[in-house]
Amino acid sequence: MNVDIGNALATVASPGVSRASLERLDSQVAAAHERIERGMENREHGYESLNLPQRTDPDEIRAAVEPIADAEVLFTVGIGGSSLGAATITNALESDTETVFLDNVDPEWVTSHLERISLENAAINVVSRSGTTAETLANFLVVRDAFESAGVDWTERTIVTTGEAGPLRDLANRHDLPSLKVPDGVPGRFSALSAVGMVAAAVCGHDLEALLEGAAAERETLTGSLFECPAYAYGATAYALDKRGAGVNAMMPYAESLETYAEWFAQLWAESLGKDGLGQTPVRALGVTDQHSQLQLYRAGPRDKLVTFITTQEGTDRGIPETDVSELAYLGDATLGELLAAEFEATEASLAAAGQPNVRIELERVDEYELGGLLYGMEAACVLAGELYSVNTFEQPAVEWAKKATRGLLGGGEFEEAEAVADKTELRVER
Amino acid sequence: MNVDIGNALATVASPGVSRASLERLDSQVAAAHERIERGMENREHGYESLNLPQRTDPDEIRAAVEPIADAEVLFTVGIGGSSLGAATITNALESDTETVFLDNVDPEWVTSHLERISLENAAINVVSRSGTTAETLANFLVVRDAFESAGVDWTERTIVTTGEAGPLRDLANRHDLPSLKVPDGVPGRFSALSAVGMVAAAVCGHDLEALLEGAAAERETLTGSLFECPAYAYGATAYALDKRGAGVNAMMPYAESLETYAEWFAQLWAESLGKDGLGQTPVRALGVTDQHSQLQLYRAGPRDKLVTFITTQEGTDRGIPETDVSELAYLGDATLGELLAAEFEATEASLAAAGQPNVRIELERVDEYELGGLLYGMEAACVLAGELYSVNTFEQPAVEWAKKATRGLLGGGEFEEAEAVADKTELRVER
Repeated sequence: MNVDIGNALATVASPGVSRASLERLDSQVAAAHERIERGMENREHGYESLNLPQRTDPDEIRAAVEPIADAEVLFTVGIGGSSLGAATITNALESDTETVFLDNVDPEWVTSHLERISLENAAINVVSRSGTTAETLANFLVVRDAFESAGVDWTERTIVTTGEAGPLRDLANRHDLPSLKVPDGVPGRFSALSAVGMVAAAVCGHDLEALLEGAAAERETLTGSLFECPAYAYGATAYALDKRGAGVNAMMPYAESLETYAEWFAQLWAESLGKDGLGQTPVRALGVTDQHSQLQLYRAGPRDKLVTFITTQEGTDRGIPETDVSELAYLGDATLGELLAAEFEATEASLAAAGQPNVRIELERVDEYELGGLLYGMEAACVLAGELYSVNTFEQPAVEWAKKATRGLLGGGEFEEAEAVADKTELRVER
Repeated sequence: MNVDIGNALATVASPGVSRASLERLDSQVAAAHERIERGMENREHGYESLNLPQRTDPDEIRAAVEPIADAEVLFTVGIGGSSLGAATITNALESDTETVFLDNVDPEWVTSHLERISLENAAINVVSRSGTTAETLANFLVVRDAFESAGVDWTERTIVTTGEAGPLRDLANRHDLPSLKVPDGVPGRFSALSAVGMVAAAVCGHDLEALLEGAAAERETLTGSLFECPAYAYGATAYALDKRGAGVNAMMPYAESLETYAEWFAQLWAESLGKDGLGQTPVRALGVTDQHSQLQLYRAGPRDKLVTFITTQEGTDRGIPETDVSELAYLGDATLGELLAAEFEATEASLAAAGQPNVRIELERVDEYELGGLLYGMEAACVLAGELYSVNTFEQPAVEWAKKATRGLLGGGEFEEAEAVADKTELRVER
């Protein structure tokens, strides 16, 4: 990926960062880069994620999925980092295999999927490092049961990705299921380029090597200067803008295929940096659609936002047929791709003209290689930002409270958190 | 809808609003309510939107869609307010008719829909008040052409919703197409309960009367006090929290069927209130999925957020099969619906325990009646908030710049905005 931070400079935007401030910040980037390199070398928790382009074995993943590679529909049962990486890759790329991500426990929604899909031609990809994630295990029990009710032997149609030990590992061993390991030292939101994200891609027939090669090429750019490394340029600029008041980061790809990527980014950014009262709030947007929804706010609302655009240079285009309506004749000389490109440039310029900071990330096209680079690059940007904020990028302690309360409410043990639920302060206004 | 603002009180949360401050604010609410009632009575621009439950004629809509009511797939070609209301309703409710919303001009994505769908059994619902919206007209020209190429007479399969005059009105007249009128005085983002939002619902066979009745019941609650009107309680609380530092409003329904509703809300809130440097930034979230993505940030990040939950009391449930894994036995005693409810209560309590403000909106279930009430209620909340901010809720002037630039870039006239695009400040970091 290439990054253009010109519209984040103080000469253009407010908040903005001056060139001199960026140069001062670059010495912090150099120190952070040393810390990151050391973490990668020592395979420390979290930093190990940035070694995945070298560590992940595509042959092992392809061999594991072989028994279910003929699936017409693949259910991925996982949530958060166990789902979003896989969904980002498979939703970005074309495939004859349909993918369904069961990342919620809404009963009507789960049922509608199970009723709609012919289970004889389906397979299950269940993903949970601990093997105890409540939502994932509940959905897995439901899906497994539905396969049995449909007369399909689920043990022939299931692949497991989990940790070294735990209930899912035991299950895989007991039923001799194909299984892969969630790599050590890699938090869920950083695991797209491991088996966690790539099993679904393998079933869909995507080019795993190209995903890893794109990521490896991005890894090669990690140097001690934000002026030489696109990933660090992005991470450092987002951090600097947040410090100057841009507490919101709106991720706005101009490609429908990258809609799920914006969700993946939102988890990466929120869960990694949102701690100690710090962290930008990620907002998921989509060009051009959100020009007709969010642009008014981005341009004329509070000056608290960085808008991050993603553009692609190439893709299949489609001409707009000519029309005899004179007011619309200008459209008939163009293609949809040209319209999309013009809308992007116009929107970017409209924010700059209003002094609202924005950054452009450029991909050549949406394919495995570029996608691998984007995922790796944003992970590296996030790790850098975590160093600059000096937060613990790789933990998410604040979610534990609700997990204990949920378990307690369902009778899974005694937890004081569950008791606090009953003490809710009410001020009800009823119809 | 019922609203519980207990967790937004200063005794629970920071930022929070004290009971005494709410009582002081209530006199502003009373004054704003008088202004709103007067606007409704005089059918003023924008305020007229709140009269839709009385003005919209379901028989007229059903009669207009009759020629295409047999469609197996309905393409709605529209963007922003011409798409999101219809999508919110049809994505929330079950139907045998598939709906596709062409609300973007990405060529690969448009082509993939047109190739996937058998056009003989499809129909087109094109929506643009002006009849000149570039994205909508470009897509309409493309889809019409695809119908012709497939040997389908598009003039037999198209319904138009547009203003009194303009290219789409001319087209409808010329080809004698069934057509409906975008009501006067109703901005796109407030038009879900008019033909704009209800044509797709009618084709899908939903109960239009119940949608309007639910909205009318909400209209009955509009009184001069936030303590008696759920919609005003929500609008006033969101406004008060924004003034106290909660510049972000995360809309988090605990129902997959309401995912598009969160997008609709994001347009309503952003485009109506995001002006003069004011306005909360809406964030679209989804329970329980985003507990594994955004909750860390909501609980431990900056204290700049209101989280708005939507819960439903009833729905079809599904049991979780029993398991012999002792760590998971507690799940086997529950249903997916119970798990969803426990996760919601736990998440709500976890934010309250951390002092993060949140509001609960309760629906009885997701059906036409409750949905009509939710849409109307949030519109009324937004109009009230606009009065409290004293902004012009019903305009969106900041989007004009990019529209002119787009048109200029495509050769549709001379616009200085298009020239500004070429002057972009660059600071590129390349791989």
